[in-house]
Amino acid sequence: MHLALAEARKAAARGEVPVGAVLVDADGHTLAADGNRTIENHDPSAHAEMLVIRAACASIGNERLPGATLYVTLEPCAMCAGAISFARIARLVWAADDPKMGAVRHGPRFFEQKTCHHRPELAGGEGADESAQMLKDFFRARRGGAGQS
Amino acid sequence: MHLALAEARKAAARGEVPVGAVLVDADGHTLAADGNRTIENHDPSAHAEMLVIRAACASIGNERLPGATLYVTLEPCAMCAGAISFARIARLVWAADDPKMGAVRHGPRFFEQKTCHHRPELAGGEGADESAQMLKDFFRARRGGAGQS
Repeated sequence: MHLALAEARKAAARGEVPVGAVLVDADGHTLAADGNRTIENHDPSAHAEMLVIRAACASIGNERLPGATLYVTLEPCAMCAGAISFARIARLVWAADDPKMGAVRHGPRFFEQKTCHHRPELAGGEGADESAQMLKDFFRARRGGAGQS
Repeated sequence: MHLALAEARKAAARGEVPVGAVLVDADGHTLAADGNRTIENHDPSAHAEMLVIRAACASIGNERLPGATLYVTLEPCAMCAGAISFARIARLVWAADDPKMGAVRHGPRFFEQKTCHHRPELAGGEGADESAQMLKDFFRARRGGAGQS
């Protein structure tokens, strides 16, 4: 999570909503690390989670990442939760909750739906204060606004 | 929808689950057309909808597509519904319903959630029989299996 928080800080420095993510394989090796790049990439799907999933899958040449753990600084939205499930990620660890756009504990609660066919092990809270403060500072500086998109 | 169904047929010919999508701007010009490429691209996020959204956004240099209509041959999943909302797509037209993975009429019903901050105008059913038959034939040929991923 330390590295994911560092990626979130780098995203903020680029003018992006500060969310960072890191994918680690079953042996603890980092597969990919990145932060939100929706503005830079002109891509509404370029959330941190999507970028690391796509990068890790490309690097191993497989659209699934069984055994992998995803660390992310904010509760994933519906889009990212869907991708996490499709990629067969084994474990999802997020820092701050996201009542406005989150889809794990909030809104769609995607992993609890019958239409979700792979549910990762879930763990929330690690690094939550630092992540939440970073997001608060970012949106205060932008004078309002919400969510990662 | 005619063009989206043609993209679905091309996806099947590539060995991908036959789902196709087309994005059209407010003036009726085609912005992007593609079919599912999750296997070919080693990318669990490479659903037809995601590919056309990313391509259209890249081509206009903006992460939003206000005024656009998305035609897709299958009810979008949670991942794609999230991206459709983030891209501010004005209208979503899908062919066949997807009770197993759909997130518009099924499961998360994403656009009805408070965590969804942009809801497109919705229209289902056009081309449903042809799309459903194509999916049925595809999965029969693969002897079982379900969904786009």
